[in-house]
Amino acid sequence: MAEISTCPPLTRASVQEAAARIRGKLHRTPIFSSTFIDSIASSTRTTKELKGTQWEGQQPSRPRLHIMLKCENLQRIGAFKPRGAFNAMLRYQEERHRASVSDATAGTESSMALPVRIISHSSGNHAQAVALAANELGYPAHIVMPSVSMPAKIAATQGYGATVHFSGPTPQERLTVVDRLLSEEGFDNVFVPPYDHPDTILGQGTLGLEIQEQMTEVLPSSHKLHAIMAPCGGGGMLSGTALSCHGTSIKVFGAEPSFEGADDCRRGIEAGKRIEVVKSTTIADGLRTPVGAIPWRVISNPEYVQGVFSATEDQIRDALELVLQRMKILIEPSSAVPLAVALYNEEFRRMIEEECIKSGEVFNLALVVSGGNLDVRRLPELLRPVL
Amino acid sequence: MAEISTCPPLTRASVQEAAARIRGKLHRTPIFSSTFIDSIASSTRTTKELKGTQWEGQQPSRPRLHIMLKCENLQRIGAFKPRGAFNAMLRYQEERHRASVSDATAGTESSMALPVRIISHSSGNHAQAVALAANELGYPAHIVMPSVSMPAKIAATQGYGATVHFSGPTPQERLTVVDRLLSEEGFDNVFVPPYDHPDTILGQGTLGLEIQEQMTEVLPSSHKLHAIMAPCGGGGMLSGTALSCHGTSIKVFGAEPSFEGADDCRRGIEAGKRIEVVKSTTIADGLRTPVGAIPWRVISNPEYVQGVFSATEDQIRDALELVLQRMKILIEPSSAVPLAVALYNEEFRRMIEEECIKSGEVFNLALVVSGGNLDVRRLPELLRPVL
Repeated sequence: MAEISTCPPLTRASVQEAAARIRGKLHRTPIFSSTFIDSIASSTRTTKELKGTQWEGQQPSRPRLHIMLKCENLQRIGAFKPRGAFNAMLRYQEERHRASVSDATAGTESSMALPVRIISHSSGNHAQAVALAANELGYPAHIVMPSVSMPAKIAATQGYGATVHFSGPTPQERLTVVDRLLSEEGFDNVFVPPYDHPDTILGQGTLGLEIQEQMTEVLPSSHKLHAIMAPCGGGGMLSGTALSCHGTSIKVFGAEPSFEGADDCRRGIEAGKRIEVVKSTTIADGLRTPVGAIPWRVISNPEYVQGVFSATEDQIRDALELVLQRMKILIEPSSAVPLAVALYNEEFRRMIEEECIKSGEVFNLALVVSGGNLDVRRLPELLRPVL
Repeated sequence: MAEISTCPPLTRASVQEAAARIRGKLHRTPIFSSTFIDSIASSTRTTKELKGTQWEGQQPSRPRLHIMLKCENLQRIGAFKPRGAFNAMLRYQEERHRASVSDATAGTESSMALPVRIISHSSGNHAQAVALAANELGYPAHIVMPSVSMPAKIAATQGYGATVHFSGPTPQERLTVVDRLLSEEGFDNVFVPPYDHPDTILGQGTLGLEIQEQMTEVLPSSHKLHAIMAPCGGGGMLSGTALSCHGTSIKVFGAEPSFEGADDCRRGIEAGKRIEVVKSTTIADGLRTPVGAIPWRVISNPEYVQGVFSATEDQIRDALELVLQRMKILIEPSSAVPLAVALYNEEFRRMIEEECIKSGEVFNLALVVSGGNLDVRRLPELLRPVL
């Protein structure tokens, strides 16, 4: 990756530069909505559903919501990840070119003579994203994947021409293999991190800009987008999206699973300190990672992100089923978390209700569907059993 | 329904009129493609795959195909059916209005005084389509459904305000209940058939026009659409699509499952006579119906439909899995049949290969994805077991 010292600042303008940089490489994914889902979102939850929560005995909220899904499950490789991977590699190319020009001008021997190797690790979508971007930019990619990864994901990563190196299941075991690869001589070994780097963040933020551009197509001309809610795992995409909205009137929210403490970002904001270790087996498996240090700086700043909310496993399962049944698109459990918050998180819904009362308007909320890569044979296990 | 004698002729112009009639009622569904699916479609099948077929020992074909999916699974109610239902009911409204004006002019008592009731029967998508259209046009709907229908489909039909009447599972048992409803006095009872009526056919054909319009958006300007392939059950949508292409250079093909004789249309064309009874338990359950008499007149005429091809159950399962895994959209098994033909039917592929050789071009083929209504909990049963 480009040295952090050479990276553009974390601003909306830098996201716009990233969007120009990756133009033409990826799909402009569609935005879908469903009148049925809007009608559920705009109904009160039952008093029974609020039983045992802090809202028990109170009147359930009644926000008026128009929900729009930004379908990055229909992105290349089935997730938003290539936005960051392309931006990071193209930025690296620019820096390398700049250095080689400067070496030539200075008359010194170029340090750029070694062949480039792209190196990364991932059990999931980032592996395919790096493999795709490296392949299209003409670099060999070496991806470390836990040997327990889904066979389809391993096959897809290899399908983009990457060499897959296997490791044990823990992050530590993965990093050991990465370190070995990075130390191999005779190459310019370039590590592409999944979220904790400005170039990744800015690339992923292009998603937020694209939503803003698409609003003229999906909303009547007198309406405006009020907020975007994105899932939060490592936080690269949420922080990038927040940057893309900074200085506009659009609010940004994060959504996390609450199971076994996977809501580390929400808890960290409450405690005023980033939580660095999470061990959760939530079904929203893309969101088990704790928030990275650089994304945290953006996300924990209320000027950028106006709130992070969580959903239970059952709420995520119900939201997932609604999307499958009503919208006919395949999404990962992680992608159902923002919808679960919008439909079932009473704290979030009360806040939106207040906004609706203040403005007298329906609240236009875009939710990021981060990806659609899952083992369809295991789908029934992800849904609630039928009673 | 409007009397058949009052129906517009089965022509492309009538499909254009239907499109104007239903404008604004339905979604303009997107067209998706996948470079991965194109690469499979444009590779040869292995000689092993051709073993035991009439092509055994021959060189497998190598067509060059660009496949585009017209996603009517993303249509309202999750299938193309409301196109026909809206057109039929709006045409009925027009005829009723015309008759009432003519009664008034003649000074006779209006025969239009009775309240309208919309009546139909279906175990699946047509039920929801009629319920939706009736609801939006302000008519009460009475739908006969076999009591063994999917609970989600019954609930969705009721969700659009229709009264559901239950029957036994056979077509005969359904029609008995329909006849009873039609004979109830005090109403103008209007039966909306699922496919065997010109107004339904012309409405469903609007799908084909829409594909033609969308080509400027999805193909480079120098390219053109070569053909549309649609699944064939009762044949309403295939015949409507064929009408929509008549007089253009676009070819139209039909696709059927071969299991237990469900390829009645293909066999009927071969025998020169419509096959009126089919009993198949193919997983492509929307295509178990034999072709209706009116669709047959169009489909069996090679001036309108240039070929009907079939796919095996395993081929349908494989195509279904490819769409789920690579395109991240939910489709019914019936909707995977055209893709199964394009990927695996050697007779079809040889024909396309010849076209490619003649023209020197990649063959641009639009496939109709007819719907996405299925029980997601049963999805794994629809796929091939992993070896």
